[in-house]
Amino acid sequence: MDLSRGDVSVQGSGMTPCGNHSTRSPSSLAVEAVTAALVDSGDHRIDAAFVGTVFGEMGSAQRSLSAAGIHSVPIVRIENACASGSTAYHEAVSAVVAGRYERVLVLGLEHMTSMFTGAITPEPRDVEGRTGLTLPSLYAMSAARYLDIGWVTQEELAAVAVKNRYNATLNPVAYQRSAVSVEQVLQSRPVSDPLTLLQCAPISDGAAAVVIGPTRPSHPDVVVRAAALRSGAYWGVRSEHVWGYDIVKATSDHAYAQAGLGPQDLDLVELHDAFTIGEIVSSEALGLAVEGAGGALAASGQTALYGRIPVNPSGGLIGRGHPLGCTGVAQIVEVVGQLRGIMGQRQLEGARIGLVETMGGGVSGLDGNACVVTILESPVRGGGA
Amino acid sequence: MDLSRGDVSVQGSGMTPCGNHSTRSPSSLAVEAVTAALVDSGDHRIDAAFVGTVFGEMGSAQRSLSAAGIHSVPIVRIENACASGSTAYHEAVSAVVAGRYERVLVLGLEHMTSMFTGAITPEPRDVEGRTGLTLPSLYAMSAARYLDIGWVTQEELAAVAVKNRYNATLNPVAYQRSAVSVEQVLQSRPVSDPLTLLQCAPISDGAAAVVIGPTRPSHPDVVVRAAALRSGAYWGVRSEHVWGYDIVKATSDHAYAQAGLGPQDLDLVELHDAFTIGEIVSSEALGLAVEGAGGALAASGQTALYGRIPVNPSGGLIGRGHPLGCTGVAQIVEVVGQLRGIMGQRQLEGARIGLVETMGGGVSGLDGNACVVTILESPVRGGGA
Repeated sequence: MDLSRGDVSVQGSGMTPCGNHSTRSPSSLAVEAVTAALVDSGDHRIDAAFVGTVFGEMGSAQRSLSAAGIHSVPIVRIENACASGSTAYHEAVSAVVAGRYERVLVLGLEHMTSMFTGAITPEPRDVEGRTGLTLPSLYAMSAARYLDIGWVTQEELAAVAVKNRYNATLNPVAYQRSAVSVEQVLQSRPVSDPLTLLQCAPISDGAAAVVIGPTRPSHPDVVVRAAALRSGAYWGVRSEHVWGYDIVKATSDHAYAQAGLGPQDLDLVELHDAFTIGEIVSSEALGLAVEGAGGALAASGQTALYGRIPVNPSGGLIGRGHPLGCTGVAQIVEVVGQLRGIMGQRQLEGARIGLVETMGGGVSGLDGNACVVTILESPVRGGGA
Repeated sequence: MDLSRGDVSVQGSGMTPCGNHSTRSPSSLAVEAVTAALVDSGDHRIDAAFVGTVFGEMGSAQRSLSAAGIHSVPIVRIENACASGSTAYHEAVSAVVAGRYERVLVLGLEHMTSMFTGAITPEPRDVEGRTGLTLPSLYAMSAARYLDIGWVTQEELAAVAVKNRYNATLNPVAYQRSAVSVEQVLQSRPVSDPLTLLQCAPISDGAAAVVIGPTRPSHPDVVVRAAALRSGAYWGVRSEHVWGYDIVKATSDHAYAQAGLGPQDLDLVELHDAFTIGEIVSSEALGLAVEGAGGALAASGQTALYGRIPVNPSGGLIGRGHPLGCTGVAQIVEVVGQLRGIMGQRQLEGARIGLVETMGGGVSGLDGNACVVTILESPVRGGGA
């Protein structure tokens, strides 16, 4: 199996709505997503499963899949902070490429409302958490830096949230389905200065699943052109860039090289906007704009739903919601749907190549992080363009 | 790369003592184990890392490896309950077999004393925990069943603890380094009837690491002959066997078939004695004794340090300790050391083939569990016997 020959595909995908599912069990979310993905793939056989979840309790991967009727196969539960779901996907793609398994299920699952009543509480053992360097603070430092050197304005930060919340109004599985204005974003309560509440992804529950397998000639399988993972200590006091830039750039450079493609070839991007500044820094690291121009790109309308290069047509983490382990897989579900042309009101015309970027920072973002970038190609192009 | 050709090896191994390391950080344990394994392998290059840990906080895998100087490579953190470390090992072996990476680091890490002051507390979301079906209860049900049908006696159960605690007295990295008698075991306080305190593995901290890579002709690398993983829903009300038997049997059958070996070929076994009855049921499922004869086997002395088929020469989970994510890797470190002939006082003469079995039950053991079995072969035999 070789990604460069288009041998590996997403054979099916499905997800639950993201939102507050405090009245439902994590397993019921898993069953809904897994069943949808299996039905979508037209085949219920599974040879192995990788499950991405951050806060799931010990054994929850096996329990959730058992509820979905998946058992007696290798199941591996993965935690790579916010990149848990996409790391599970990366491991599944790698396993199919290697010929270890034929059909591999990927489940991204998170039930945050059973863990947190408000924001994520750092554990006592978490060094960064103890020093106040939580994720909102890390991102806020980046935003403050960008504001200070004139690489972004408050309005450009807010434009990311405005765009993504608008996109979410067109997405039936999104959590935050009401549009907001720049003024509303900037006037919402401060979380970590300069980031306001509406610039932060909400605590969410959800599950998403995809089936990875060999490309089937007669099926509308979306082809995996690249899947790259980098991890650990990419940022430190020696970097000239803000937090996250270096690892996203290293990972996407690897993915672009795998696919033989560049940012100019992309028709859409789902990227990691846990906070507004995250979308801006990631869009620069992905090469959608030069460094310092990501804010202007967001405010220009070019990344809007029908702009030059739509970013986060799903609504992103801010609009769709951010159930941590679910997020990376939900991003893939969105791009797969767009490439198959089945996304209804928010369908992008002629989308053929899409990129997904997930950034796992975690409360230990300072010296522990992970990034996954995958590039997917439409079956139409794969079939004959 | 092909396991049947002996292409893949454990190139280095190392671990911390198991015990109460409440005054040390998880990262410092990781650094100690990783450094020892890298030094032992004679090579500090690493292409990827898989980290098994159950209770490590979000991002802790990356943080711990960063402290050990490992970064900028793919890092995947895995949780499969008590089989987390051995699942990480399984994924590393699979990655080397597939040619994904050359040298892969496996770290098993757990710092339980920072999580629990006494026994493991089930999470509120844990269905089995809520119903009282915690792990001690699950194992106690098996023990009660075996006692009821006459497959084991109280004294045979105790014999497992007596043997493993004795072995631990010869192991410098073991936690429980004092011998106990059958009477002491049976008179210790009840935990879950009929299991007494000295029949249970202690809450422990520890880290263990191995490096997996292609077999090097000029090195004393221990060869991986088999690595099998099964997971999920192997036990239910329809099984005629007690909890754990079915999944251990299915996994070891697969490993024996991979290696072209059977239980009669083994020179030593490290298996999952989280509770005394666990060793008895696992030894039956592995084919060391017929069903119902595992207790007699333990009491007969045949599984003692210099018996016919030594089981848990390290002291096992009961004697060495059971830092959950560390355990599977620590078992491998023991077998690797025995096959290399470097285990000092407890070295088994002429040990050439060893098997490791880890059983991930978790608080969700009822319908979510995982088992890893690996078979390792001494470099002496691999080199010319």
